[in-house]
Amino acid sequence: MALDEIPRMKIVHGDAGYVLEDVPHLTDFIPDLPTYPNPLQDNPAYSVVKQYFVNQDDTVAQKIVVQKNSLRGTHFRRAGPRQKVYFESDEVQACIVTCGGLCPGLNTVIREIVCGLAYMYGVTNIIGIEDGYKGFYARNTISLSPRSVNDIHKRGGTILNTSRGGHVTSKIVDSIQDRGINQVYILGGDGTQRGASVIFEEIQRRGLKVAVAGIPKTIDNDIAVIDKSFGFDTAVEEAQRAINAAHVEAESFENGIGLVKLMGRYSGFIAMHATLASRDVDCCLIPESPFYLEGPGGLFEFIEKRLKEIGHMVLVVAEGAGQELIAESLRSINHQDASGNKLLLDVGLWLSQKIKDHFTNKGKIPINLKYIDPTYMIRAIPSNASDNVYCTLLAHSAIHGAMAGYTGFTVGPVNGRHAYIPFHRVTEKQNKVVITDRMWARLLSSTNQPSFLSLKDMEQMKKEDEPANQVLNQNSIAGDYHVESTEGNGLPDGSTSC
Amino acid sequence: MALDEIPRMKIVHGDAGYVLEDVPHLTDFIPDLPTYPNPLQDNPAYSVVKQYFVNQDDTVAQKIVVQKNSLRGTHFRRAGPRQKVYFESDEVQACIVTCGGLCPGLNTVIREIVCGLAYMYGVTNIIGIEDGYKGFYARNTISLSPRSVNDIHKRGGTILNTSRGGHVTSKIVDSIQDRGINQVYILGGDGTQRGASVIFEEIQRRGLKVAVAGIPKTIDNDIAVIDKSFGFDTAVEEAQRAINAAHVEAESFENGIGLVKLMGRYSGFIAMHATLASRDVDCCLIPESPFYLEGPGGLFEFIEKRLKEIGHMVLVVAEGAGQELIAESLRSINHQDASGNKLLLDVGLWLSQKIKDHFTNKGKIPINLKYIDPTYMIRAIPSNASDNVYCTLLAHSAIHGAMAGYTGFTVGPVNGRHAYIPFHRVTEKQNKVVITDRMWARLLSSTNQPSFLSLKDMEQMKKEDEPANQVLNQNSIAGDYHVESTEGNGLPDGSTSC
Amino acid sequence: MALDEIPRMKIVHGDAGYVLEDVPHLTDFIPDLPTYPNPLQDNPAYSVVKQYFVNQDDTVAQKIVVQKNSLRGTHFRRAGPRQKVYFESDEVQACIVTCGGLCPGLNTVIREIVCGLAYMYGVTNIIGIEDGYKGFYARNTISLSPRSVNDIHKRGGTILNTSRGGHVTSKIVDSIQDRGINQVYILGGDGTQRGASVIFEEIQRRGLKVAVAGIPKTIDNDIAVIDKSFGFDTAVEEAQRAINAAHVEAESFENGIGLVKLMGRYSGFIAMHATLASRDVDCCLIPESPFYLEGPGGLFEFIEKRLKEIGHMVLVVAEGAGQELIAESLRSINHQDASGNKLLLDVGLWLSQKIKDHFTNKGKIPINLKYIDPTYMIRAIPSNASDNVYCTLLAHSAIHGAMAGYTGFTVGPVNGRHAYIPFHRVTEKQNKVVITDRMWARLLSSTNQPSFLSLKDMEQMKKEDEPANQVLNQNSIAGDYHVESTEGNGLPDGSTSC
Amino acid sequence: MALDEIPRMKIVHGDAGYVLEDVPHLTDFIPDLPTYPNPLQDNPAYSVVKQYFVNQDDTVAQKIVVQKNSLRGTHFRRAGPRQKVYFESDEVQACIVTCGGLCPGLNTVIREIVCGLAYMYGVTNIIGIEDGYKGFYARNTISLSPRSVNDIHKRGGTILNTSRGGHVTSKIVDSIQDRGINQVYILGGDGTQRGASVIFEEIQRRGLKVAVAGIPKTIDNDIAVIDKSFGFDTAVEEAQRAINAAHVEAESFENGIGLVKLMGRYSGFIAMHATLASRDVDCCLIPESPFYLEGPGGLFEFIEKRLKEIGHMVLVVAEGAGQELIAESLRSINHQDASGNKLLLDVGLWLSQKIKDHFTNKGKIPINLKYIDPTYMIRAIPSNASDNVYCTLLAHSAIHGAMAGYTGFTVGPVNGRHAYIPFHRVTEKQNKVVITDRMWARLLSSTNQPSFLSLKDMEQMKKEDEPANQVLNQNSIAGDYHVESTEGNGLPDGSTSC
Repeated sequence: MALDEIPRMKIVHGDAGYVLEDVPHLTDFIPDLPTYPNPLQDNPAYSVVKQYFVNQDDTVAQKIVVQKNSLRGTHFRRAGPRQKVYFESDEVQACIVTCGGLCPGLNTVIREIVCGLAYMYGVTNIIGIEDGYKGFYARNTISLSPRSVNDIHKRGGTILNTSRGGHVTSKIVDSIQDRGINQVYILGGDGTQRGASVIFEEIQRRGLKVAVAGIPKTIDNDIAVIDKSFGFDTAVEEAQRAINAAHVEAESFENGIGLVKLMGRYSGFIAMHATLASRDVDCCLIPESPFYLEGPGGLFEFIEKRLKEIGHMVLVVAEGAGQELIAESLRSINHQDASGNKLLLDVGLWLSQKIKDHFTNKGKIPINLKYIDPTYMIRAIPSNASDNVYCTLLAHSAIHGAMAGYTGFTVGPVNGRHAYIPFHRVTEKQNKVVITDRMWARLLSSTNQPSFLSLKDMEQMKKEDEPANQVLNQNSIAGDYHVESTEGNGLPDGSTSC
Repeated sequence: MALDEIPRMKIVHGDAGYVLEDVPHLTDFIPDLPTYPNPLQDNPAYSVVKQYFVNQDDTVAQKIVVQKNSLRGTHFRRAGPRQKVYFESDEVQACIVTCGGLCPGLNTVIREIVCGLAYMYGVTNIIGIEDGYKGFYARNTISLSPRSVNDIHKRGGTILNTSRGGHVTSKIVDSIQDRGINQVYILGGDGTQRGASVIFEEIQRRGLKVAVAGIPKTIDNDIAVIDKSFGFDTAVEEAQRAINAAHVEAESFENGIGLVKLMGRYSGFIAMHATLASRDVDCCLIPESPFYLEGPGGLFEFIEKRLKEIGHMVLVVAEGAGQELIAESLRSINHQDASGNKLLLDVGLWLSQKIKDHFTNKGKIPINLKYIDPTYMIRAIPSNASDNVYCTLLAHSAIHGAMAGYTGFTVGPVNGRHAYIPFHRVTEKQNKVVITDRMWARLLSSTNQPSFLSLKDMEQMKKEDEPANQVLNQNSIAGDYHVESTEGNGLPDGSTSC
Repeated sequence: MALDEIPRMKIVHGDAGYVLEDVPHLTDFIPDLPTYPNPLQDNPAYSVVKQYFVNQDDTVAQKIVVQKNSLRGTHFRRAGPRQKVYFESDEVQACIVTCGGLCPGLNTVIREIVCGLAYMYGVTNIIGIEDGYKGFYARNTISLSPRSVNDIHKRGGTILNTSRGGHVTSKIVDSIQDRGINQVYILGGDGTQRGASVIFEEIQRRGLKVAVAGIPKTIDNDIAVIDKSFGFDTAVEEAQRAINAAHVEAESFENGIGLVKLMGRYSGFIAMHATLASRDVDCCLIPESPFYLEGPGGLFEFIEKRLKEIGHMVLVVAEGAGQELIAESLRSINHQDASGNKLLLDVGLWLSQKIKDHFTNKGKIPINLKYIDPTYMIRAIPSNASDNVYCTLLAHSAIHGAMAGYTGFTVGPVNGRHAYIPFHRVTEKQNKVVITDRMWARLLSSTNQPSFLSLKDMEQMKKEDEPANQVLNQNSIAGDYHVESTEGNGLPDGSTSC
Repeated sequence: MALDEIPRMKIVHGDAGYVLEDVPHLTDFIPDLPTYPNPLQDNPAYSVVKQYFVNQDDTVAQKIVVQKNSLRGTHFRRAGPRQKVYFESDEVQACIVTCGGLCPGLNTVIREIVCGLAYMYGVTNIIGIEDGYKGFYARNTISLSPRSVNDIHKRGGTILNTSRGGHVTSKIVDSIQDRGINQVYILGGDGTQRGASVIFEEIQRRGLKVAVAGIPKTIDNDIAVIDKSFGFDTAVEEAQRAINAAHVEAESFENGIGLVKLMGRYSGFIAMHATLASRDVDCCLIPESPFYLEGPGGLFEFIEKRLKEIGHMVLVVAEGAGQELIAESLRSINHQDASGNKLLLDVGLWLSQKIKDHFTNKGKIPINLKYIDPTYMIRAIPSNASDNVYCTLLAHSAIHGAMAGYTGFTVGPVNGRHAYIPFHRVTEKQNKVVITDRMWARLLSSTNQPSFLSLKDMEQMKKEDEPANQVLNQNSIAGDYHVESTEGNGLPDGSTSC
């Protein structure tokens, strides 16, 4: 089968208008694979659970609704153990790889994949690929066991190291073949998941019995479809330190301004939640909500007003905010002498300087600005308790899926239930803060900052339909994220959740 | 209208089989109340939000499904601001009271009620009732303003003090009348909410224009219907310190046993989640899962086995676990000399002694047991970032409801959406860990502890139907709690969630 | 030479009335030992240090003054590297053992002995004795290397495990001989140091070339002579959490009493410093200052007064406080039914009950008492930055001493300079809070608690001479501890310190 | 008396060659001031303390030795309460001002001055000057009471706000006179202490009965003479977070470099101690030890070597390190376009870019550099337990001194004893890391970093005498700082210390 013949989607239309957006299965391209009883049925821990196994032949009606672009909505396959598995325990040769930037919880996911495979499925051949994708072909692997990973969840970073790029599909799949690997667990952001998708396709083309499972990783919470990404809670919590420090610095000086840059290249979730949690922030700037500096309704005006009112203020800015403004600024600078100017690509440094210049030049208000960039201090901490539990569930979903023969999927909770999601779903678009939604309104209300919108903007925004396939978070932090169309999700009574 | 004539329930049957379990409204017993436009519509922060206001006349179909005991499920009224309010800003005289034990987040909820009333509705007359219910009649009140509560969310405890009991309905309602209070916000556990219900009934009987809103508080997460109680996340996080210490102590001594008692009189959620988050715990005992000490399959046998295998172990016990065993133990003790024996009512002290006695008397294994009770150290900390955001949402729900004239309700998220819930719903039963559900199975699997169940027990449990009106958590920690019957919740397309 | 012939003291009388209380040296009982140049002189790191080496033949005048019971004071030998060493690098076979209870910093000391021996002296044969003294004869050893101990200072506890007792001198020295060990590093409290002394004596009797170095360990800071024990700073810091929690609990309830038990069986340093650091404590009870409950000037009267004044209070009690009162209490209880009463030997539980009984029986004040025992949560944490640096200095002192052929010594700073101290000095008496000193007066002044002393007591105490050989702390916490007789310590100009 | 006639020093030559460098006293310029008995003698807390009061007429022999430039050393006056005071309680009108940058402990010192004055001396008129020196004439004051400052030590920053500059002597002294202030407590660094000195001189010239007391504040520990500055311990502790994060980031990437900038414009104490405490740092750069980038023995060579050896590294750089290199770098850059280049004055940003440029241009090693600047996150935290106790002692010293009529002094421990120090002593030079001392050697040994010194440099340095009046730290962190010439400090037996 040629590459272009491989279907990227596996859509099943059920009766009554249901649509199941399913994930691939090994049997799609390798017929006649033998199955084995799931060893979990001998596990006393699960013996009391009602309907522990998700029915392998579950009907469309058991899937999770995510969208409403059809009569009865689109569904994903429920994550969880199946009664039949496609790998015998001692046949499994699993590998784990971490790619991209650091995120609290990476080590917890690694630990739980290793421990889950070992304790739930009796798998002992597990190796770690070091340094991200390129580790498949450029380095030796390391052996992983429950013992060797026992304490790693208490450390930040990733014991497997990580890197960006290095994705040379053929070399990676060659390595997988050469090493006899048949389960590949890939932790990384949307770029990494795209890479995982290509690896899966090449594996499919070669007809290998290798399950490829992605665990989506993004500290920014900007991965679409899933309710929340691991490490996000921890990041919001740790960001409070920086905001507190900014607040103390600002309060202790006349016209003190504390400026904190938080992660979020394309989406402002960390900035938004950290602001809502702190109650000390006077203004939060995110990529989704363009702002401007000068003139009426601009940032400088607001800062001046706030300084006059209470004598100090705290600003939080997501790293991706104001990129157009920076680009514009830099265009006007002589590029012959760029060594220092590169630094201005950092929105925090750029905004610090803009604010200082403005208030110095106007000469009216001698401000005291303190800029804090806690990014690496946040990324590098271990995951908190809440994320630890969450990472366990993600790891278990991935394991159950791979053992059951599913492949080419990523895992995550959708509308509160863990699901197997086709790669393209999490990579085709990014999760973003919806600034016409209530959560952002709550933030505006709590900070009293300007919306930086003209009346016309607002009318326009209210009118616009949100993108048809938008699936928003419904996590406990947000509590009330907009979830479209859970109408008629058709879960039968008594269905076992998640 | 005589007391017995007051309907305890306000059930609306919609077409298509929907059932709405509504909350009372001031107009139910005070006709012809004037309404005013909600001042929020002038708030620029909300001006960009689509469908910001929940339709006052919303149909049954817009409610939240919680149960399946009717054809199309039972629904609660959606929380959120309404276009019309029943109080003018300067007419409002609000009071806040905190009752029962400490819980992280109390001060945050107080702060957000005060700031929410002030900033969203322009309300400035807000007082605090000190020392719980009895403060209504036994003490002076204190004045609360956004300025006076500005930093209180960074402190543990409650600035209003708290107490148990002290509920003298007539005196409380007299005080409400005397002081001209017309909005009463009551933070407390199920006992407190029952008290709030009685206060509401008395107010209704007297025909007073007074809205009574409860904010359910329980660090144990044992309040029914709502997805999660505030402070729970913080408690699970803080519990990690104690478990870590127990682990270090256990690991550093031959046959070291670390025993940690965690909160949970009737439900073991904190113990369960803290165990799952830690990965260092070898055995978790909760009230929902009876255990026994002696004999095959008993705790002593398991401890001995674990000590032989790895040389140390960590036990977590919820305060309400093993109550029957303790009762039995104490019956056999001479009661003439009870001063020290009272201490044995504490399951931690009792279990410590039982374990020590067992291994000393058997003389086989010289154990090193360290008992840690972090209860007050956990209760007294400020809420974490995640709980801070959550507390804000609860406070806002309560405010919007009271301003819109609803009364006799408590607030909380149900299946991910914030709702107004009749008091009886949260007081009639307690939320408990379902030990036939997957989360407990995951715990058993991660600790490898015995289930303390006979085969017969297990058969029996699998067969039993869960209580018809059980509504289980669907929070992000649990991720995959069992939620019954969200079938056909009938949310129309485009409905604004939460 | 028979045991009784071995001199326990090595006193050198210098001219001008100096007395040097020296530590043994291998050459005292093994003549003609060869010496080697100290490899440190090739270490570039030390090449810029003036007078890096402590002169081997240093005169009495270079020693550290500790006492004034002679004309010019008693001195200890200065710790530090010597120009000549008595071990070649590859000849050294070092072992490390940890005994007694946990204390923050144990792992740091272990790490620094291993890394110091390796990096400063090129020693690679280092083993760990597990489980305390009995590990010498009852278990296999484990190999230690800079790599294997690299991160252990970030963990609490001791990687070598620990135990009490198990000191069978002949078996231990047999094991030392059998394994070819020639440097023994022993971490432990005064009992352990006494054991180390006996081991040293047996080694001396057998004429073995084995250096025995003690590193005094006591979280309570109750070891005499030395300025401060490692882990103490960390313990005081961590104790703040418990006191904060007690304060929040006390403040949030009417007549709230927070009672915190802190470590300190024989000395109240942790309780005293934690109280001074916190500023939230109303009363601090320590072993050195007897107190009484009933009657005028008693504790109950003070509690009642404080509750009336400010409505709540926080008590800190050292574990060794009030032992006579407890003994007396228990004598009056029927001992037939002792199972629960044993718990009352814990001063915290005992005092909690006494206070509750008093206020319940008197019926006047319905108190809310919360008892917190953070002992194991404090002991089990890793050492803080300040203790980490301190542990490094202790480990280096021990290494330099052993390499230079000294033996039968313990290490520690005395009056700010690190010294080699004969074992008997640190074991013959305990360091105690001097309640006629200013630090305790500061505490009394800050808490306003009663002194529990009669006028006669006070007169008596003022008159009494302090014990002649008392050497008090001069640490940075206290800042101004009483140090007797640094008169004429006779350090020549330009002497190399420490 | 004209300004130039005012003696800047008050030197007393005692017999036997002692020199007392005394501080001024009100009676030096206001004769016949009445005295009063110290109210502390009625304080039961102090009634048990032997020799509580420092003898007002104490002989030279009771002073603290700090220097050896005379036969028997130079001494400072011992801090502590005197039997006679020169202010009646209700006559005192005290004020407190904080100047310069933030430092953990400012609020604790403020609290303890207020509480100490109130509880020890019955003083109730205490005001806070806001915004530093300029607050004397540009703002209203705020009233301070034990109640209003009760919890401020748990907050970072300073409740009095702070600022740099604003020192207009005449306006400040006018304000002091106008407001009837007679005790001035000034918290600040060496610039601030110089200002305090000028204020004192003007007060002296005007013949006002106003005591001026300085409390030296410098997070960098760069104030001369005193053993340690408050906030330093806390800063070193908090710096560990940043170093840990840098270590995790560095370890998780191939050729990962973590670069942490720490405070220390003129002295590298924080960087040095944080490095020693962490054990994860590979190279520490401080102002006292010049370094170079290129060529043999340079930083780049060392980085490359370390990356090859272990694959990652952590650098700590004090903010004042490498200033000459930066100046040189910037001279070569076109200054026409300076907006971004200003940022390069930050050694962290400059060094980051230099390292990146070097390894990119050489093209050999694709490094992953992460730069962390935790400065404001460190400055803004509350002081830890150890600093809290220390701040109390400083505040009490200042109070006792002012009440006893001393003026024109600053306070602090010198060689372990608290003293009154003339202003010029703490401002005439800065405390610096002595790189020919053992502490720096320990650091070099622990990091194995190059010394950046030529052989000639080293010879030169070893030969040079240290500055005659250098007084080095003897704090517990360092433990064994070089202290010169405590010879013959002539403390009489039984003298009460501190």
